[in-house]
Amino acid sequence: MADFDLVIRGGTVGTASESFRADVGVTDGIITALGSNLGSGTREIDATGRLVLPGGIDAHCHLDQPSGDGSICADGFESGSRSAAAGGTTTILPFALQMKGGSLTEAVKDYHERADGKAVVDYAFHLIVTDPTAHVIGQELPSLIARGYTSFKIYMTYDDLKLNDRQILEVLALSRREGAMVMVHAENSDVISWLTDRLEQAGLTTPIYHAVSRPMPVEREATHRAISLSEIVDVPVLIVHVSGREAVQQIHTAQGRGLRVYAETCPQYLYLTEDDLAKPGFEGAKCLCSPPPRDKANQEVIWSGLRNGTFQVFSSDHAPFRFEDPAGKMLHGTDASFRYVPNGVPGLETRLPLLFNGISEGRIDLPTFVRVTATQPAQIYGLSPRKGSIAIGSDADIAIWDPERKVTIANADLHHAVDYTPYEGIEVTGWPVTTLVRGQVVSQEGETLQSPGYGTFLPCERPNPPLPEPSLAVR
Amino acid sequence: MADFDLVIRGGTVGTASESFRADVGVTDGIITALGSNLGSGTREIDATGRLVLPGGIDAHCHLDQPSGDGSICADGFESGSRSAAAGGTTTILPFALQMKGGSLTEAVKDYHERADGKAVVDYAFHLIVTDPTAHVIGQELPSLIARGYTSFKIYMTYDDLKLNDRQILEVLALSRREGAMVMVHAENSDVISWLTDRLEQAGLTTPIYHAVSRPMPVEREATHRAISLSEIVDVPVLIVHVSGREAVQQIHTAQGRGLRVYAETCPQYLYLTEDDLAKPGFEGAKCLCSPPPRDKANQEVIWSGLRNGTFQVFSSDHAPFRFEDPAGKMLHGTDASFRYVPNGVPGLETRLPLLFNGISEGRIDLPTFVRVTATQPAQIYGLSPRKGSIAIGSDADIAIWDPERKVTIANADLHHAVDYTPYEGIEVTGWPVTTLVRGQVVSQEGETLQSPGYGTFLPCERPNPPLPEPSLAVR
Amino acid sequence: MADFDLVIRGGTVGTASESFRADVGVTDGIITALGSNLGSGTREIDATGRLVLPGGIDAHCHLDQPSGDGSICADGFESGSRSAAAGGTTTILPFALQMKGGSLTEAVKDYHERADGKAVVDYAFHLIVTDPTAHVIGQELPSLIARGYTSFKIYMTYDDLKLNDRQILEVLALSRREGAMVMVHAENSDVISWLTDRLEQAGLTTPIYHAVSRPMPVEREATHRAISLSEIVDVPVLIVHVSGREAVQQIHTAQGRGLRVYAETCPQYLYLTEDDLAKPGFEGAKCLCSPPPRDKANQEVIWSGLRNGTFQVFSSDHAPFRFEDPAGKMLHGTDASFRYVPNGVPGLETRLPLLFNGISEGRIDLPTFVRVTATQPAQIYGLSPRKGSIAIGSDADIAIWDPERKVTIANADLHHAVDYTPYEGIEVTGWPVTTLVRGQVVSQEGETLQSPGYGTFLPCERPNPPLPEPSLAVR
Amino acid sequence: MADFDLVIRGGTVGTASESFRADVGVTDGIITALGSNLGSGTREIDATGRLVLPGGIDAHCHLDQPSGDGSICADGFESGSRSAAAGGTTTILPFALQMKGGSLTEAVKDYHERADGKAVVDYAFHLIVTDPTAHVIGQELPSLIARGYTSFKIYMTYDDLKLNDRQILEVLALSRREGAMVMVHAENSDVISWLTDRLEQAGLTTPIYHAVSRPMPVEREATHRAISLSEIVDVPVLIVHVSGREAVQQIHTAQGRGLRVYAETCPQYLYLTEDDLAKPGFEGAKCLCSPPPRDKANQEVIWSGLRNGTFQVFSSDHAPFRFEDPAGKMLHGTDASFRYVPNGVPGLETRLPLLFNGISEGRIDLPTFVRVTATQPAQIYGLSPRKGSIAIGSDADIAIWDPERKVTIANADLHHAVDYTPYEGIEVTGWPVTTLVRGQVVSQEGETLQSPGYGTFLPCERPNPPLPEPSLAVR
Repeated sequence: MADFDLVIRGGTVGTASESFRADVGVTDGIITALGSNLGSGTREIDATGRLVLPGGIDAHCHLDQPSGDGSICADGFESGSRSAAAGGTTTILPFALQMKGGSLTEAVKDYHERADGKAVVDYAFHLIVTDPTAHVIGQELPSLIARGYTSFKIYMTYDDLKLNDRQILEVLALSRREGAMVMVHAENSDVISWLTDRLEQAGLTTPIYHAVSRPMPVEREATHRAISLSEIVDVPVLIVHVSGREAVQQIHTAQGRGLRVYAETCPQYLYLTEDDLAKPGFEGAKCLCSPPPRDKANQEVIWSGLRNGTFQVFSSDHAPFRFEDPAGKMLHGTDASFRYVPNGVPGLETRLPLLFNGISEGRIDLPTFVRVTATQPAQIYGLSPRKGSIAIGSDADIAIWDPERKVTIANADLHHAVDYTPYEGIEVTGWPVTTLVRGQVVSQEGETLQSPGYGTFLPCERPNPPLPEPSLAVR
Repeated sequence: MADFDLVIRGGTVGTASESFRADVGVTDGIITALGSNLGSGTREIDATGRLVLPGGIDAHCHLDQPSGDGSICADGFESGSRSAAAGGTTTILPFALQMKGGSLTEAVKDYHERADGKAVVDYAFHLIVTDPTAHVIGQELPSLIARGYTSFKIYMTYDDLKLNDRQILEVLALSRREGAMVMVHAENSDVISWLTDRLEQAGLTTPIYHAVSRPMPVEREATHRAISLSEIVDVPVLIVHVSGREAVQQIHTAQGRGLRVYAETCPQYLYLTEDDLAKPGFEGAKCLCSPPPRDKANQEVIWSGLRNGTFQVFSSDHAPFRFEDPAGKMLHGTDASFRYVPNGVPGLETRLPLLFNGISEGRIDLPTFVRVTATQPAQIYGLSPRKGSIAIGSDADIAIWDPERKVTIANADLHHAVDYTPYEGIEVTGWPVTTLVRGQVVSQEGETLQSPGYGTFLPCERPNPPLPEPSLAVR
Repeated sequence: MADFDLVIRGGTVGTASESFRADVGVTDGIITALGSNLGSGTREIDATGRLVLPGGIDAHCHLDQPSGDGSICADGFESGSRSAAAGGTTTILPFALQMKGGSLTEAVKDYHERADGKAVVDYAFHLIVTDPTAHVIGQELPSLIARGYTSFKIYMTYDDLKLNDRQILEVLALSRREGAMVMVHAENSDVISWLTDRLEQAGLTTPIYHAVSRPMPVEREATHRAISLSEIVDVPVLIVHVSGREAVQQIHTAQGRGLRVYAETCPQYLYLTEDDLAKPGFEGAKCLCSPPPRDKANQEVIWSGLRNGTFQVFSSDHAPFRFEDPAGKMLHGTDASFRYVPNGVPGLETRLPLLFNGISEGRIDLPTFVRVTATQPAQIYGLSPRKGSIAIGSDADIAIWDPERKVTIANADLHHAVDYTPYEGIEVTGWPVTTLVRGQVVSQEGETLQSPGYGTFLPCERPNPPLPEPSLAVR
Repeated sequence: MADFDLVIRGGTVGTASESFRADVGVTDGIITALGSNLGSGTREIDATGRLVLPGGIDAHCHLDQPSGDGSICADGFESGSRSAAAGGTTTILPFALQMKGGSLTEAVKDYHERADGKAVVDYAFHLIVTDPTAHVIGQELPSLIARGYTSFKIYMTYDDLKLNDRQILEVLALSRREGAMVMVHAENSDVISWLTDRLEQAGLTTPIYHAVSRPMPVEREATHRAISLSEIVDVPVLIVHVSGREAVQQIHTAQGRGLRVYAETCPQYLYLTEDDLAKPGFEGAKCLCSPPPRDKANQEVIWSGLRNGTFQVFSSDHAPFRFEDPAGKMLHGTDASFRYVPNGVPGLETRLPLLFNGISEGRIDLPTFVRVTATQPAQIYGLSPRKGSIAIGSDADIAIWDPERKVTIANADLHHAVDYTPYEGIEVTGWPVTTLVRGQVVSQEGETLQSPGYGTFLPCERPNPPLPEPSLAVR
């Protein structure tokens, strides 16, 4: 009888702090051994010349998420998770969205129904809190946290989603009491709407004006405000999809002051610029997302922030709106104001290769890659130690990478249901050839080998210790 | 026949940039000559050994301002202006307050009625904009600006006053189009209300908890936000009553980035601290104002900001609520929560001596004193060159100071109608012995020599060039 | 008999804090009256439509300064002061340079001989301290300060001039004890020499590589070090010829911390860039100075620093090396390494018009112009109130400007002895048409009307209060 | 036959990024397996309830280092390494010091003789470069780097050690070419000597005045300068023994700008303050080190910098000078000026428990502890992957910690040869009970179980890629 169900043999294991040659032994879907010459496995995978990394955790993606405007997510949990797996991702965290006036518990129930039996990788849910009533704060959230929904996303913009500062404080205070984690979409809503109105009045409505409607101070202001509110409550906060220098500076300065401010960025801020929104006709809509991509200098700042630890999380913010589709980017036609174009870019599958390419180009090192794509997302969202690490006792969620393979990104090769990728034609070096979830190969050279439903729901731990209310003492 | 109506002879004239021995010649209320040995005056004042300074402009004071809560301003234009004159101030800028839902034009009319025939010094009005409807923005304000009401105060806190960010943008944009000036009370309303609720729930309601409800990040956040909004509109903005380091840093950094951000501070941030709010019983209510006084280290930062030019304006924010009075600080009794205590401290008369004392102590120099108490307020609010300067053609608004006189501040000696001063017992060196408005002595050694109504209304110029809307161009 | 020796009638007087229509009355070379309708003058100048400003103080210029390398200053006190006067400058502060091993007292004597009977405008001397021996610190400098030489320049670079940090501390401590003022040329010498050696080894020696040898961190480092040393001694310091953002940030931050750090900039940092050094052949040597001009973005930072008060002094750093001259820029021929090209650009005459053009372009206002070109230099270097102000009792040093005149700068029109100007062909708006020193017209429409020797030496006051040694107490 | 030479069973393994329950299998002194239930070991250690961590790397300690002043290191490699082992440290990096005028190669040879056959833990050498002649830069250092001496320490202070900026540039440039690592002792030498002279002149010579002679700007200035020099050369640099806020800010800001600036701190900056130097009589000399300990607020900044990643390395800077010893602190008697007191505090053995106590107190987490005490030092100094990690293929250098054990630090219990510890009486929670080097227990409950000479010399890899000279291109 073999010593292990599976041995991945001869590869170089990478963690968030080191890399080393080791075989990986897996039993019952769990990593049970790392060793220089492990015994036999019922199954064996030859990883010679390959990197054996924790499967990616995509901590920010939208799948099968209903909207009020008629737009439709082209990807649900089936195509979304298949695409994720093909890109080396083994855990996804989409969102269960509370409708204003609605119940979060019901939303969670609904999302489970959307996900049940569909996914090929494991998943957890962040909650989007849009209506933090006393009932939601006092009853629903504590109950949901106890059941494993321990992170919330809140918005400072979008009329149907945004919270005011008081509501943000309530959510942050709840987070402190319960040891949860709050993610913030930080853009100043009023500035955006004011600029948008002015742009429309001036007839400036093509996709590039989306960027004009959201200049850097829009993001900087909201970032500073979110940090200030978390400082008042004395609770960690995470700023999602940070796009450039001015926001990075706010975060870095806050970290330097000792505040527990975390930050996420995304591939679109490393590879796209405003120029992509300025492409002729409606083409720019393919790269229309919020915050908008900035410029080359800001890309460098983002790379630098990944390197120096300002960022803890690298996600896709996958928003699967098809381009040539009346339920997608063309919801209101190609002449519609940017205001009505569904926001976001697809990226579940390309996220990891695009960042890995930064290793190939000498921009970041391997531990940084693992840290921001897997280990720290797992720790920050209460999935550690089960997920995010190649460690004894962790799930055998593993991506095996060929670090030398050159791939030119082409939508035709991707597995999502979106009809384009904003990264079409970019050549990257390094590609995930095999993706395993709990010891089973889910994706091999782009072929999905598990059936929908293989992926299971992950209740999350509280990522932080529950604490009493912050002090009201006189200094 | 004499050469001048009045000659002030033998003093040292101080301006915002220099000081020099000179006689001052006045004709028809106007300064018509400065000279080393001027001809005769019908009247002459011997200023030997004295400083001859521009009369102070108190650009932030509340007089006879109605409120919704039943509190009453003890000072109207008569006692207020008398007190101002006794303290060396020759121009005051109280506020005409728009009630939500009300007309600004009506408010202005009402305030004129309150002021007519009362004041002994000249006055202009800032407008408090609480309801920037399309009519207000499009009709009332342009018309009022044309009539000489060229500065507006807006609030980011107080439920009956505050604007949201969109409204602030509208006011800033109007200001840009019209060349006006916007003053901002920068505190985050939602944080204050959230902390206040928590404090009250915890039974922590004595005056010191007012300070706990408004910690420094409350002010820092709103300051950064106000600056960001003005940056979006590309228009000057002035942050009023800045209390300490974190807000000063935001302003200083913005100035360093080239933004036209101005700032005001007040005596309470130089002489009071939180400890004054912690005095036994209800006594702390005497020093309850917003933002609250901070600590000694923050006082030093404010002095430094006066010295290095971060501040352009030094005002009193005179808020004349009596202490032992059911229409004043004791509106809801002495056991009431700090939430219900009328905010503010009196200070029209003590403002200048308290700052002048900083010259005596070597903290600031004379030109700085003149700059922030007279010249720059006049320039920033469109009263220059008529007011704020000892210059040919300017109104002969002059305060003659004895720089050596030591005075222990005592409310019994003050001329306002408030029953206390927060500065009781502080000894200052330097005192304004004679105050002239348009060449007439209004106050002499504390005695008022002009009748109510001597003071006249001052229409203000536009302080900035009107500009078209900010660019919407793609960068 | 006339009331005044001279009346300048009908102009607009500008000071560092205001401007106003006034006649200026002069008696015995002193401003004795400002008035709206002064009596008669023996002489009268019609200044209708003109600006009547304090004559400029050029607080940083090199005239007839010997060097060790054979280069020769083309301008001595005669041509230099004539050129200054033609450009609206009425006081110049060149340097008396101590040779290493030499006596400062002797240097001062020597410079007086060079100046005596030559100048048409008044002058004072800064001392360049290159060898602060115990004798110099303990004897010569106190004695020279008592005689009116109250400011010193020290260098952190140039082998024959530079001081080490210990020497800088000794000079700063002396300055504190005596109430003097220390000016610092802040560039890191070792970095320059190391980069220069490497550039020469690589054969990169044309003028543009002068800029490569002195990148921004060279200046930033030395600026921070000079500030730190002055902070240790607790004494004011002034950083001369600041070129761009990184140095400005160090200064602005130090000012924000409450340190008395002053700063000077020059026209070359507003109008030239590195590109000017990259001109074909040896042409770039015309703009070779230290620190080197930077780029357009840095120019904007300098303008902004003038506007927001970071800078107190605007000087020329006039260095009169002729271009086509074996004692000038071509000292070692046109193929010589940039290392051997005499540093500096001429600018005495163009300094004021180039800055005034910033008023015409809306970059700065008139009080700022007066402040940095006259009033603050006088105050910082102990020449106030005699110089730098249009004030009663001050010398009648006045430049009368035509604010509308457009002039295209051409070396052929200038009065210095240098054979080029780096500003050739630049059109400016605003020109000083008449320059008076002590009530006498020295320059009128470019014509010099006083004889050499009209200008007199100015002993300077101590600009700061002498203070005991800084505290050695335990905190 | 057993599967492993040694199995450490049942403990919780901690790495720089995660912790997990695992047995550790060791063969031939190498970690060959991590597993949930490993096979048998010839030896087994029960680690139930214990933490199994990488042995500490003390990357900054002084052992048997000759000096010019007659002081003697009480600890050589025998007692030093025994003490290290007892404190959970398995690798030490003392210094081979070049004497001015001397050969580095000879110094290395000498140090090997001092170390040979003495140590019980492994060791590598940093080189102290005090005389970077062309021969040293061109011949000795490249040769030594090739032989495994890949990090250098340079001093900006101490007369017999310090380099000037040019020399620093040469060392940094060599480091870039060779892929080495430069550590900098950053204090401004001239300021220290100037203040010291003044203190002595004032008769202020007790130990506390050591702190007065090295105020924070001394360290801040040199830190900024070192960073600037490394920026010029475009090479990583590491600032050692950072003591407080102003230096931390320089480093954090540089990291935010994308520079590869690393930093080290030490226990003395977490547990001591200036007050410890102010103890009566000569007692303060026990805590006299450079930079000096600061105050409580600065301690918090250091903790924060450990938490947020500003620091990569936590070392002891062990300086084993006995207190009551004419070759130690009392070298010049107890009345000697602080100037003559040998600098430094002992700390090899207490370093790790003092930091671990920060985990117990909730200040840092376990991965941070491992990161700064082992993993990152190994990576930064070229000892990775052999040292610093619990990873397959790494040396089995392991410290087994009892996280609950409370120990009151007492010099009587320590193993160094110094007669005091500055931490006497401090109670810490968490203690290393067993220390293994290459699979052998070296220290068990304070008892040393290996003989001198067990420890071996470690040649270091180049920590960075060798790079050509930085660009000289025109921007």
